[in-house]
Amino acid sequence: MAVVQFTIVPLGTGSTSLSSYVAAVHRVLEESGVANSLTPMGTVLEGPLDDILAVIRKVHELPFEAGAQRVMTLINIDDRRDKKGSIEQKLTSVTSKL
Amino acid sequence: MAVVQFTIVPLGTGSTSLSSYVAAVHRVLEESGVANSLTPMGTVLEGPLDDILAVIRKVHELPFEAGAQRVMTLINIDDRRDKKGSIEQKLTSVTSKL
Amino acid sequence: MAVVQFTIVPLGTGSTSLSSYVAAVHRVLEESGVANSLTPMGTVLEGPLDDILAVIRKVHELPFEAGAQRVMTLINIDDRRDKKGSIEQKLTSVTSKL
Amino acid sequence: MAVVQFTIVPLGTGSTSLSSYVAAVHRVLEESGVANSLTPMGTVLEGPLDDILAVIRKVHELPFEAGAQRVMTLINIDDRRDKKGSIEQKLTSVTSKL
Repeated sequence: MAVVQFTIVPLGTGSTSLSSYVAAVHRVLEESGVANSLTPMGTVLEGPLDDILAVIRKVHELPFEAGAQRVMTLINIDDRRDKKGSIEQKLTSVTSKL
Repeated sequence: MAVVQFTIVPLGTGSTSLSSYVAAVHRVLEESGVANSLTPMGTVLEGPLDDILAVIRKVHELPFEAGAQRVMTLINIDDRRDKKGSIEQKLTSVTSKL
Repeated sequence: MAVVQFTIVPLGTGSTSLSSYVAAVHRVLEESGVANSLTPMGTVLEGPLDDILAVIRKVHELPFEAGAQRVMTLINIDDRRDKKGSIEQKLTSVTSKL
Repeated sequence: MAVVQFTIVPLGTGSTSLSSYVAAVHRVLEESGVANSLTPMGTVLEGPLDDILAVIRKVHELPFEAGAQRVMTLINIDDRRDKKGSIEQKLTSVTSKL
């Protein structure tokens, strides 16, 4: 199980707004069945790493389908093998210490 | 107003757990008065960019004070001048399209 | 053709040095046939995006095989469809303007 | 001494090309006196962390001065206190193992 954040940034679109692209990504994520959480600076996924990378690869195409000619996608993988990492476990682990 | 995510990663600590470092960061953030939100892969701050960078610079020192000898800090600045960007505005802007 | 930077960071290894992990990654990259360039903060690959992501997925496992229990891998994809992006084109494009 | 990579990405400019923005950044970097190295996915700086962050803060404004209304700036700080980290040391440390 990995926890992975990604941020998709279309470049040269002529608009400073990215929310329609992010919304398109989330519609596909919902259908994918991969657990996901929208955050202010990206989307966080949780699950088997190969499943996660496959879905990011898929949604990376969406801005191109919407007309963008250049897309920057940032991915941050947190992969832990000594215990089951998850979005909830990561947040609880910190808040329990506060 | 900018929205900025940061992630502080101490290296070579001998433990795979980072939550005590993150908790220390959040205690300082709470005192700083800068609006912040804990996410699974980092912390998101909102406010004037100079204030945000000053507080990140400060908390970047905390793992060293706790004994770490190498720290990687990732910062992602989203700075918008055509409208007032904020954590809430960014999330609402997406969810209103879903 | 995409240009992709990645950085693999094993956590909790007890050593602040990462170079042996990076060297192991580069030995596998050399065998992979994907064009690559070592930079101070990561490795840059160039080629078809699916080939690049497959090789990053493979080398992400190397620190686990060397004993690490947690690995953070950062990936930054720059994917351009209006012209052939490449490492050389990106550098030349800037230096020609200086 | 820290080694820091940054990437400045103006959004909504209507052009997929970023090289003129990067060139403007490098002209200011050259005047700053901070050691720097252009890589395919960003710029790497080396020196005292406060000096580096001050120069990144300064060049982050350049795309706004050139008309951009939204700028995303990615920063990756590698700060080591057990030995003198530098761009050359990081590269040599890996290549000596290959």
